[in-house]
Amino acid sequence: MAVAISRRGAVEPFHAMDILAEANRLRAEGHSVVSLAVGQPSDPAPLAVREAAALAVRNGKIGYTDSLGLMELRQAISRHYADAYGLDVPAARVAVTTGSSAGFNLAFLAMFDPGDRVAITTPGYPAYRNILAALGLEVVEIRLTEEGYLTAEMLERAHREKPLKGVLFASPGNPTGALIPAEALKQLVEAARDMGISVISDEIYHRLSYTGGDVSALAYGDDVTVINSFSKYYCMTGWRIGWMILPEELVRPVERIAQSLYISAPEMSQIGAVKAFGGSAELDIVRQRYIENRKLLAEALPRLGLPLAAPMDGAFYAYCDVSRHTNDSMDFAKRLLAEAHVAATPGIDFDINEGNRYLRFSYAGSGEDVAEAIKRLTRWL
Amino acid sequence: MAVAISRRGAVEPFHAMDILAEANRLRAEGHSVVSLAVGQPSDPAPLAVREAAALAVRNGKIGYTDSLGLMELRQAISRHYADAYGLDVPAARVAVTTGSSAGFNLAFLAMFDPGDRVAITTPGYPAYRNILAALGLEVVEIRLTEEGYLTAEMLERAHREKPLKGVLFASPGNPTGALIPAEALKQLVEAARDMGISVISDEIYHRLSYTGGDVSALAYGDDVTVINSFSKYYCMTGWRIGWMILPEELVRPVERIAQSLYISAPEMSQIGAVKAFGGSAELDIVRQRYIENRKLLAEALPRLGLPLAAPMDGAFYAYCDVSRHTNDSMDFAKRLLAEAHVAATPGIDFDINEGNRYLRFSYAGSGEDVAEAIKRLTRWL
Repeated sequence: MAVAISRRGAVEPFHAMDILAEANRLRAEGHSVVSLAVGQPSDPAPLAVREAAALAVRNGKIGYTDSLGLMELRQAISRHYADAYGLDVPAARVAVTTGSSAGFNLAFLAMFDPGDRVAITTPGYPAYRNILAALGLEVVEIRLTEEGYLTAEMLERAHREKPLKGVLFASPGNPTGALIPAEALKQLVEAARDMGISVISDEIYHRLSYTGGDVSALAYGDDVTVINSFSKYYCMTGWRIGWMILPEELVRPVERIAQSLYISAPEMSQIGAVKAFGGSAELDIVRQRYIENRKLLAEALPRLGLPLAAPMDGAFYAYCDVSRHTNDSMDFAKRLLAEAHVAATPGIDFDINEGNRYLRFSYAGSGEDVAEAIKRLTRWL
Repeated sequence: MAVAISRRGAVEPFHAMDILAEANRLRAEGHSVVSLAVGQPSDPAPLAVREAAALAVRNGKIGYTDSLGLMELRQAISRHYADAYGLDVPAARVAVTTGSSAGFNLAFLAMFDPGDRVAITTPGYPAYRNILAALGLEVVEIRLTEEGYLTAEMLERAHREKPLKGVLFASPGNPTGALIPAEALKQLVEAARDMGISVISDEIYHRLSYTGGDVSALAYGDDVTVINSFSKYYCMTGWRIGWMILPEELVRPVERIAQSLYISAPEMSQIGAVKAFGGSAELDIVRQRYIENRKLLAEALPRLGLPLAAPMDGAFYAYCDVSRHTNDSMDFAKRLLAEAHVAATPGIDFDINEGNRYLRFSYAGSGEDVAEAIKRLTRWL
């Protein structure tokens, strides 16, 4: 036998996906499983998106597109920045990607070389850490404090300890839902620029802020790389379609790498996504339901001895403290799934060191699912 | 400004994609462009594939799947190995990927660490080289000789010079169309195993062999990694859907990396692909047209002073020698596109050192396109 197995492949599993696989297995056995594990809307994409894509799939040839995406979609994304943010972002700086997953991989490959240090926040989306590690980058985790977001001061402190090449942050954040206030974001981007640290701003949960408006890091300079996606607000997870806004100098490097690593994003998803920005009437109804789900969980979880560990200002997650019940969040999540058939994500996905104290519930599902999960949790605890 | 630009991002562009972008630009200006540049069938996927996917897109929620893919598709792929090759490949060893592009990236990440040496053949598919380089692997190019395929002896010689960790080859090959005969493939896989070299077999052009049957490297051991896709024979390029057959030990590493780097392949493409293996009646008509196109080009190109540089045994490419007309294949391809509106791929995509002597025509298009391209070429030359 000659099977090479790399060391860098030994990244942490994404436990949410393992929980999803186990939930699917239980469902296939006929069990009624309520899943609050994965950050995935239970609603479909807007009708116009689905109709355009279905028509193209049914009748058309679905082929490779330019690696940076269909010009029509790049232009629609460009218009979205004018409409939603009042920002002038030319289509030439838009790269359509195979979900934000591809956006992160492309940004890291185009910007950083092995050994470069890139800061992320803890707790945070586990794929950041895993992709960075697989690509040979040194991950510097900056632990968030009570206010829940990265500040210029925290970045400066981390940079003094170990000089950073890049920083990646999200607002609203996952799993906390925390927002970075506009003024703090401005200071953060400017501080990074002053220190020569490149900024990657993950804006995938924009349009899902409940306590304030969306501010893009692009408002504070054209030298930031923004990653976004149609997965969350636009309800298009499984379509695998997202985008990046790139500093001019990065457009060609990203294009070259994308040509070899992805060729292009799925064409039917691109054709559908052109219609996504027109889907707000439907999507705002979904968003309204998140607001109601959020209220249900914000009331119920503390009552069940699961106090919230984060503000739930945006996204669709409740990150709560389960330390009264367990000191092993993975074991807790597995038992919750096996015994009460409720899927949730163990905090260790988002925080290797302290995550055993936390559990993340996604409230992107239906109101019935959230209500049923609360009922089962109450019984089980 | 603080824009980091990595050294590893300085991979070669995939010139075929640049030519495609330029062809699209000319088309948008109203020119009639005949594209023989990209390895992309001009036919759509089989009707049952399109109907299943369109229905799911129109009516269903398109969501994340397990990272290794929908079990129904993994089982269909497993059955395909029994039906088409008489091989027993359990569904548990099948990983559904976002095209073969993701297959290569996942194989390289899961198998090799930075600095490991991996051999590929020259001329060959440019993404191999570019992905390997971006991931910090040392690319060892083994130049093919007249017979057109990699032999056990050539691999042994390369390994003596510089010890190899892995080897990647394709049969049928791109851009040459060359097949590795069954006995030579057996010797190659066994020689690799004896030397402790891990094998990756790119079988994306299977079912498109015109002079012999398909033999999978899996016939010679469960320790090889096979990469395949629905893009070529199944006419599903823009769907971005492919698969890997993995040695047991690699299933979990690949799953873990896929969870973070891809989450999952597009679900509608997975739903469609389940029906692909039942589409042979339609697909064999398309294949028949490739046979006719192949004949047209095999006759016309030498007549035009563009002798074939490879046997055209499989795939859908004519790799021909343009040295009578130019010593710069990129310039030649650009002029051919600008002046005759025929898109072809410069040999430098496949062979950095000697590729300026070659041009690749894809005959995956319609018969009319191939005939029109020959007409324009005749006039232009």
